[in-house]
This record gives sequence, C-alpha cells and structure tokens, in this order.
Amino acid sequence: MAADAVQATLYFPQLDRAVRAQPGDSIFRTARRNGVRIVGACGGRGTCGSCIVQVTAGEVETVEAPARELEAGSVAPKRWLRSCLMRPCGDLVVEIAPRSLAPVARPEPDTGADDEQLDADPLVRCRELVVPAPTLADPRSDAGRLRQALAQPDARIDLEALRALPDALRADAGRVRAWLRADEVIDVAPGRRHGLGLGIDLGTTNAAGFLIDLDTGVRIAGLGIENPQAAWGADVISRLNHAIGGAAQAAELRDAALVAINALAHDLTHAVGASVADIVDVVIAGNTVMHHLLLGLPVRQLGRAPFVAASHERIEVKARELGVRTAAGAWVQLLPNVGGFVGGDHVAALLATERLWRGDATSVVMDIGTNTEISLIRRGAIRCASSPSGPALEGGHISCGMRAADGAIEHVGLDAGGRLAIRTIGDEPAVGLCGSGVIDTLATLHRAGIVDARGGLVAAHPAVVPHDGRRAAQLAPGVVFTQADVRAVQLAKSAIRTALDLLLDAQGLQAAAIDHFVIAGSFGAYIDVASAVAIGLLPDLPAARFRQVGNAAGQGVRLALASRAARRRADELAQTCRALELSTRSDFQQRFIANLGLPAQRAPAPAAADPVHPLEARAS
Amino acid sequence: MAADAVQATLYFPQLDRAVRAQPGDSIFRTARRNGVRIVGACGGRGTCGSCIVQVTAGEVETVEAPARELEAGSVAPKRWLRSCLMRPCGDLVVEIAPRSLAPVARPEPDTGADDEQLDADPLVRCRELVVPAPTLADPRSDAGRLRQALAQPDARIDLEALRALPDALRADAGRVRAWLRADEVIDVAPGRRHGLGLGIDLGTTNAAGFLIDLDTGVRIAGLGIENPQAAWGADVISRLNHAIGGAAQAAELRDAALVAINALAHDLTHAVGASVADIVDVVIAGNTVMHHLLLGLPVRQLGRAPFVAASHERIEVKARELGVRTAAGAWVQLLPNVGGFVGGDHVAALLATERLWRGDATSVVMDIGTNTEISLIRRGAIRCASSPSGPALEGGHISCGMRAADGAIEHVGLDAGGRLAIRTIGDEPAVGLCGSGVIDTLATLHRAGIVDARGGLVAAHPAVVPHDGRRAAQLAPGVVFTQADVRAVQLAKSAIRTALDLLLDAQGLQAAAIDHFVIAGSFGAYIDVASAVAIGLLPDLPAARFRQVGNAAGQGVRLALASRAARRRADELAQTCRALELSTRSDFQQRFIANLGLPAQRAPAPAAADPVHPLEARAS
Repeated sequence: MAADAVQATLYFPQLDRAVRAQPGDSIFRTARRNGVRIVGACGGRGTCGSCIVQVTAGEVETVEAPARELEAGSVAPKRWLRSCLMRPCGDLVVEIAPRSLAPVARPEPDTGADDEQLDADPLVRCRELVVPAPTLADPRSDAGRLRQALAQPDARIDLEALRALPDALRADAGRVRAWLRADEVIDVAPGRRHGLGLGIDLGTTNAAGFLIDLDTGVRIAGLGIENPQAAWGADVISRLNHAIGGAAQAAELRDAALVAINALAHDLTHAVGASVADIVDVVIAGNTVMHHLLLGLPVRQLGRAPFVAASHERIEVKARELGVRTAAGAWVQLLPNVGGFVGGDHVAALLATERLWRGDATSVVMDIGTNTEISLIRRGAIRCASSPSGPALEGGHISCGMRAADGAIEHVGLDAGGRLAIRTIGDEPAVGLCGSGVIDTLATLHRAGIVDARGGLVAAHPAVVPHDGRRAAQLAPGVVFTQADVRAVQLAKSAIRTALDLLLDAQGLQAAAIDHFVIAGSFGAYIDVASAVAIGLLPDLPAARFRQVGNAAGQGVRLALASRAARRRADELAQTCRALELSTRSDFQQRFIANLGLPAQRAPAPAAADPVHPLEARAS
Repeated sequence: MAADAVQATLYFPQLDRAVRAQPGDSIFRTARRNGVRIVGACGGRGTCGSCIVQVTAGEVETVEAPARELEAGSVAPKRWLRSCLMRPCGDLVVEIAPRSLAPVARPEPDTGADDEQLDADPLVRCRELVVPAPTLADPRSDAGRLRQALAQPDARIDLEALRALPDALRADAGRVRAWLRADEVIDVAPGRRHGLGLGIDLGTTNAAGFLIDLDTGVRIAGLGIENPQAAWGADVISRLNHAIGGAAQAAELRDAALVAINALAHDLTHAVGASVADIVDVVIAGNTVMHHLLLGLPVRQLGRAPFVAASHERIEVKARELGVRTAAGAWVQLLPNVGGFVGGDHVAALLATERLWRGDATSVVMDIGTNTEISLIRRGAIRCASSPSGPALEGGHISCGMRAADGAIEHVGLDAGGRLAIRTIGDEPAVGLCGSGVIDTLATLHRAGIVDARGGLVAAHPAVVPHDGRRAAQLAPGVVFTQADVRAVQLAKSAIRTALDLLLDAQGLQAAAIDHFVIAGSFGAYIDVASAVAIGLLPDLPAARFRQVGNAAGQGVRLALASRAARRRADELAQTCRALELSTRSDFQQRFIANLGLPAQRAPAPAAADPVHPLEARAS
C-alpha cells in the first residue's frame, strides 16, 4: 500500500497519545506536527541520530533520502531506528527510545531570577466545603446551597461547573473542592484533587510549558517542545504571510499552537500523576504574532506599516472557548503585548527580571531568540524593540546546525598553540553545531584570522576547505561552517545589534552607559558572552555588567500564575513600555549594513578553561 | 426507493431554511421537529387539513394511515396537499400554503399589561463611533483606539468582536457601531445596523419569540411555534424521564430547544429584513425543566423529591456557547427560577402583571398551560406552586382536540330551547375542538344534564352516542367529546384547582378572599371564565375580579430586554417567591379526588350572545 495515500494513526504508549499522520510524513515529522516530545537535534534531516524509536506494531517504509539506515521497503518491527527515516504504511504503535524522549523536568529548580518577588497569592483559589443536602423543608437549588457554603451569595458559577455540580454534591455527601477565580466558581469536584496552574511560553521556535502548584507557587514540572507551527516557516514573517493567505491557513496555525499547548498540558500532568482536568488556571505569553495566531485574531494589519496589533491589553478567555483542555471552567490569560511584535513574552521577562534593573541605573533586557526583543530602561521609562533575528544564532538554517544534544559542538576555542579546539555535549564525536557553538565558532574563526573583518573565509587558510563549490571551515569530520553560515550569523547579529544601537541613539546614549545588561532566554543562558562581544552581537562592556538569567519569560508567566500582584504589574509594565518601530527608520538600513562586519579584535582570549578536544584535522 | 432509508433534505424557500428529515417522518413531522412554522391544528393526524403544502421538486409517497387524500405511491408535484400525509423519497423543495404558514405578527400591539412599567433602559446599548486610523507615530492597537473612542479605557472586548474589529475599523474609515453590555463590547460593525433584542418564552408545548427594538423597547415582531421537544412527550415529566435516560437523550432535548430558538430568531429577523447577526441581546424564560434541558443541566435530582434544581438564580451565558445564533458576542440571559418546577416564565408573568396585584390586596396570578403555575400574593409575600395539568385543557390528548384554527369549535352553549349550539372559528364546518371549546363543552354538557356531577355521560340522553365501544357526546358530524375526554378534563382541572386550594389553605384563606385573579397565558386569554367556574377549574368569584391578560410571560421577557430595572426586579421577585411542593403533602390526594367532580350548577346561563349555529344533529 502506498504510504502517500495513507492517513495513519500513530499511537505512542509512553505518552498515551494517538496522533494522525499527514500522508507522506515521516514518523518524526508526524510527531513534531503533533507536539510529541521527541528529540530531533538536526530537525529531521537524518544526520544526528537523536530521534530513535521502535515500531512495535504496524508497517513502515523508508523515506527517499537520505536513506542512511533503512533498506528500501518495509522493515521488521522491534528495531531501534531513526524516526525521521521511516514513514507509516498504516497505523503504528511507536515506542520512543528513552534518550530520544525529551524529559519532563520535575522538580525543576527555579533559576533564582525572581524568587524575591514571589508571594503566593494566586487568582484561582481552592475552597474545601461541605454542602448540606437538600430537604423537603429546604429544597434550595444546588447552586444556592453551594453559594451559602461559600458564604458568597453573589458568586457566579461557570456553566460547565454548574453542569457538574449536582453529581459532585452527591458523590461524597456534599464534600467538594470548589475552585474560585475572583467571584466565579470555575470547577467543583468531590474529594481531593490537584490544583495546578499551567504556564506556557509560546515561542516562535519552541514552546515551553510548566506546571505550578497554585497553593505554593512552586514549579513542579517543566517541558519544552518544538512549536508545531514550524511546519509553516521558521520565522514570524513566514507564518504571518501564511495566515494572511486565508481563514483556512490561519486556522492551521491556530490549531498548531493549540496542539503544542495541549500536548504540553497532557504530558506535564501525565508526568506528575495528574490530568488536564486538574489544571485550574492557564497563563500564556508569546510575541504579538504568536498571540494573534493563537487567538485567531486577524494579522493582515500587523504585517504592514504601521504594524498595528488587534489588541495589546491582557486577554482573558475561557480555556474551552480557545480549545485548551483544562478543568471545566478554567480561564486562559494571555499576558499583554507592548506593541509591534513585542509581546507578552517580553513583558513576562521584564516582570521576572525587574529586581535586576529597577532603580535609576540604565539597563538593557534582551531576550535572544528567533525574534529578539530588547528593552532599554532608564529612570522608569522602558523603550523596546523587536528584531527579526531569525533562527541562525540558535543553529537553525546553519548547514550543520542542530539542537543542543549529544554530539553537538557547544564550545569552540583556540588551544595554547592557537589551534581550533572543540567541546561537544556529552563528549561524543561531533555531529553538528548547536547555538552557543555557532557564536563561538564565528568568534574563534575571526580571532584565528580564518574569517576576515567583512566575514570572508580566508582562502589560504588550511582549515578552509571546498564545500559544495564554496568555502567552508572544517570543524570536525563531517562538520563544517560554510561561507553561507558566516553570512547568516552576520545578518542575525547585525539585526540584533542594530536594534540595540537605535534604541540607544533614540535616548542619546552610548553603549558604555549601560549599567546592567540582562540576557534572558534559554538560548541566552548558554552563549559565551565574550564570543558574543567578539562578533559584535553584544557591546563591549565589562563582563560584570552582563547577567544571564535563563528563561525569564517562563519565570514571568509563573509569577503571574502565582500572584495577582504580578499580574497587575505585568499590565503596568506593558503600558509603561513604548515600542519603537525600527524598520521604518531612515537610518536603519545604513546602520544594519555597518553592523554586518566583525569588530576589530581585542587581545586573543585565553584558552578555554574547560577541557576541549583538539581538532583531529587541526589548523596548522 | 424506500422512504424509510432516506435522510432527505427539505428546503423551504419561503423561509430560506433547509432541514433534514428523519427516516420515515412525514413532511409535517419533519417541519415540526425543525421548528418550521407550519400550521397543524390536529397535530399531524390527517384530520384537520390545515398543514397544506406544495412539493415543487422531488418525490414523495403517502404515509400508511389515515390516507384520506393520497393514493399509494408517488404523487405528481405541484398539488396542494396535506403535509402530514406525505413522506419524502429524497430531497424536496416544499412551498407552504400561505394560510398554513404561521404568521409573523408585526407590529404586534402590546396587550397593555405592562406599558406603565416600561422605561427603555436596556442592558445592551449602541455607541456610534469614529475611531481614528493608526499612524506610525501612534501605532496603538485597534482595541486601544476603540477604547479611547468609547472613553472607556477598561472596556472588555469579546473575543469574537475583537476578531471582527480590524476589518470593521477599515471598512468605512473607522465609522462603526459598537454594542456594549455593561463594560463589555459584544460586537462592532461598520455603518448602520439594527440592534435587536430577542425574547423567548420557552413553553412546554409552544415556544413564543419576539423581537424588540432595543432603542425604544417596542416589540416589532412576534411568532409562536410548537416546541419541537413535543416529539419526546407532551409533558415535562415525559421529557425529564427521557433526559434522565442518558447524555444522548438529554442532548436530543437540548438540541430540540435550540432548534426552536434558532428557528424563531431566523424567521423573526427574516420577516423584518434583518438577520440573526443583528440580535445583540437575548432573554429566555421557561419553567425549570425547560430551563435545565436548554442549559444541559442535569435533571435527575429535579425529577424526584425533594425536587431540587441545579440552579435558580439568573444565568448569563454567551449565546455562542449555548448554541444560539446572534451577533458576535451577545449573551443569553435566562430569567431566574423560583423552585420546584416554577420557573422564569412565571417570574416573567409576575413581573409583567405587577401593577395588577401590588399593594395590600390578596391576589392570584395563574398561568394556565401544560404546566400551570399559580402564585398567591398577600401583603408582599408570594407563595407559588406548579401543577402538571397536562395538555387536555388546550385540546391536546382530546379525541377531537385541535389547535385554534378554522373549523375548530371555540364556543359551545345552549340555545333558547336548551339545545347545544356551537360556534367555530371562521364559521367553517366543525372539524374539532380547540382549548376554549373544550372547557365550554364540559361546562355546557354538565349544565344540560348530559354529564353528571361525577363526570359520567348520561346513557339515556339522545346526544350521547356509542363511540369505539364507549359513550360520547356528539357535537357535530364527526366531532365527539368522549367519556375519556371528560375524564382528561376532570384530571386537568382538578390538578389546577387543588393547587390553588392548597395554596389558599396554607395561608388559612378561602377562595372568596381573592381580590384580584389574574389569568395569564395565551390560552388563558381565550377561555370563558364562566365556563371555567362552571366546571370548577376557577373558584366562583364575581366576574369583575378576574382579569385575562394574555401572554404575560412574554411581556415580562420584553421588559427584561428593555429595562435593566426590570431585570433586577425579576431577580427580586424570584427571591421573594416561596414555592410550595404540593405533591408530597399528605392531603393532596384527598383534595385532588374531591376536586374531580363537577360543581353543583348555578342557574342556567343565558344563551350565548354571539351568533351560534344550531347543531345539525341536535339534542331533542
């Protein structure tokens, strides 16, 4: 049977999830489209070997290319194989290799960026009640008796919660837990249950989710998956253009975002022995495009000057109306946007890092990602901008780029002899470059004189080899950094640096005036700041002024779940921020071109202190 | 092709509605199940000839019995035939004869029961705005600029309204109408539009709908159709039992109620040149069972002692969540219930009639229907009860019963010679008995000595004829009133009267203490009070104390749409009312049996003043 014609169902018993395959899609691509948390460092190109599965029932065939592992035709079941090289011929049962299953972190220690601010005072609270049974003498309604037990005669009751109420009151002699969101009863259940908050940082490339215990505000599980919208383009502009194409296209992107959120909700609750019905509150942050696509808001006006959002203010909507599976009457709050493409994720990052920048100092908060948001904060005024930096810095659209996984080059330096030296994750043989390695690579190649100030690979250098008719630097066997890769990193870093420079310009400031430079974001936590300075991505400031805080957006979302005051503060921050639209400035293009080059080198950095492996094919 | 296997679609071009037929259903039954407003006085039994249609495309076959009109096999199209005797053999186009299409009344003069109370102050209001376009210098969001134009910075915006906002603002240079419900923008549309309120009186047997102009509070169209839930039983107990059978059965009844509401919304707006998208507010009233079934609330606990509702208080829910088609973000409000089966329809009736009973007098408000609600009001205290009187008084479950339509006997009296005399609607030959005729018939048969005090038909009387092995009174050729019909009316009138007596007893009152007796309901408007007194349905009070006010529940719903104060007053009335559960009282059964008999006769009433036709087969 031709695999192209098949609409197969894939069941993943470890996750207790069944998903539908699009005709022709590999197992890996099907998993990714459906938010199944399979590792795939190279993005499904068959090169990294990190997406291993075993098909325990059903028939598969190989994808056409690059068929490194499978013979043509069906394979016997019960072998551990790369999921990106197999296509279903019908329904399958698929077991994911333990090391290929992205782990749910639990408990994940908080990074400390926000602990000081945490006062557990959630918007959604639990009330334990005993509601008396009705009698002939007092046949008040179930809702009326519940309100009396709550001592809130004017409490509203969500319709789904009301539908559940009669059975809930009769299951355990009136003993119930009621979940209240301000004056609304959003769920009622007999006996004891979890009361979980779900936070989502909906990024362009990755969607991170975590659960918090609403009673304590403590994070109890976290998980990141690829945003399934990636199937429609790596950056926000591609997705905007797809959505503008029509209602059906916009619905595809909306559904993909919901797939991610519901997959996170399912896997996270599953991992802690709970269910999505235990999620009584949800807070989501994302950039303006992610926000609009998820809500089904029109994006045409957002895609052209003056880049106007449908809404900036916080939005609250019933989870079931949005399509997020939770407790009966739970709400989803989307954190407010700032303007342009600067969205609630940046507001969340500001919220989480406020103690690092508040006061009279001049500070920058930069969240590096596929879209990079930057705030310049001075005397209480916050001016921010969004830069479409693209995925190159994170290893996307780089010829040997991959996610951080075993075998990824994460650090590149020069050894005492001035030769390239690499370090891989897990000390495995190198198979590609992850994001921190990309920045290191360009910095080191520049420092070693292999890349010149304009970004050209120097023909005469022995580390430079021909690759597909152009030049490339050989980092390890099979791992190269091409001229095109250099250009991609130059474009990305210039986009970010130009945005920062223009924000400074608008305030009449030089970079040296920055007292605190907060680097937010999961990716930003791993970059080598010195390398980032060396390629001109970051300004040349004393190292002590930089602070890498990890996923501050996720921390901000957690604060909003745990604290009503934090929610209000997020609204204030969004209103305080002024977004600058940079792409329409007359000097943008000139500054952008100027920033493409690589800065003059400082004194060579010392050899990396950590153990590095000398390159096998080393630069002499 | 066997009609039993067909899932045909029937298109009614006059209504611009297409509906699906259940296999085996007649055209008439299909229409009724789907809220198509076709007249059918006999309920589809093939006897009255009021449900005439022409099939202009498609094939039909006759139903098996009683096939008075059609030969077996297909019929030629383009003939006016009874829709109850035709079954689709496939898709059909069906034109309803003008006299068989229940008319939309527009404008329908208000009955005057409530005019004094009307102060147009609706909850949903229109704002005409010009929202400035965004600029690069001021790229605020569409929502932000709308809020500024409203001068309501904290206005909430419904998600669907927000989805419509960007296009609405760009369609006519920012000129829009915004509809606000308190602080929530529920819809935004460019240019001018209607702003209509939809009121629904969802009765067990009939669903009445009407539109009001929210600016003025004036009713602009009204329409009544059969409640499609009738397919699952004529009374609330049958429907309760069906719904208790399972979620699928409950969903059938919920869907049927929605069919009725959406059909009314469609036909009413269609008739005034508007659309359902112009409906910006909805108020619905019904008894507790109608209320629960529509909302999908569990009814098991409502069906057994102590007869506890899930909720009494007013419920507000987005129309789209409930499944009612309206403007983007419109809400539905269900008026509050009192208790037991006494629901929001009775609260609405009290609201509409308050000026007739307020003060220190002792008053009764009785809404006669398939379920009859009665309030006894004394010194501000309202005690009420519900009585499952069944459909007999309205001509349902009566052997020759029919709706009020041409040929229905609406009045029966004795002529100067003491002989039975009938009057039919439209002076047409008699084909059946409508509700007012039913009460008249029993009163007159009793007065003439044809029915004795215990309800027996007197064997020796020449008007009494054998009918299916039992006795019946012959009213006209082919129209009889059987011994079983007498029993059905006795049961119904005793149920009502017993409820009234027990309410009086509980207050230590005699019927003579009633100063004002308000008879509400469409049916109640047409009954002959003297006849109702003669059979013991109503107490023997001076005629001046009775007041027949028509569909007060519908008037109350209109008030709630037009006036926020009326909405609040409805809440107060519902809280003031105390419902008495009568069926569990020890003396109920005894009183009920005592009330089955017919009262001793007063002096014979004078001959009817209106022209009556002597019976062709007259009692000698």
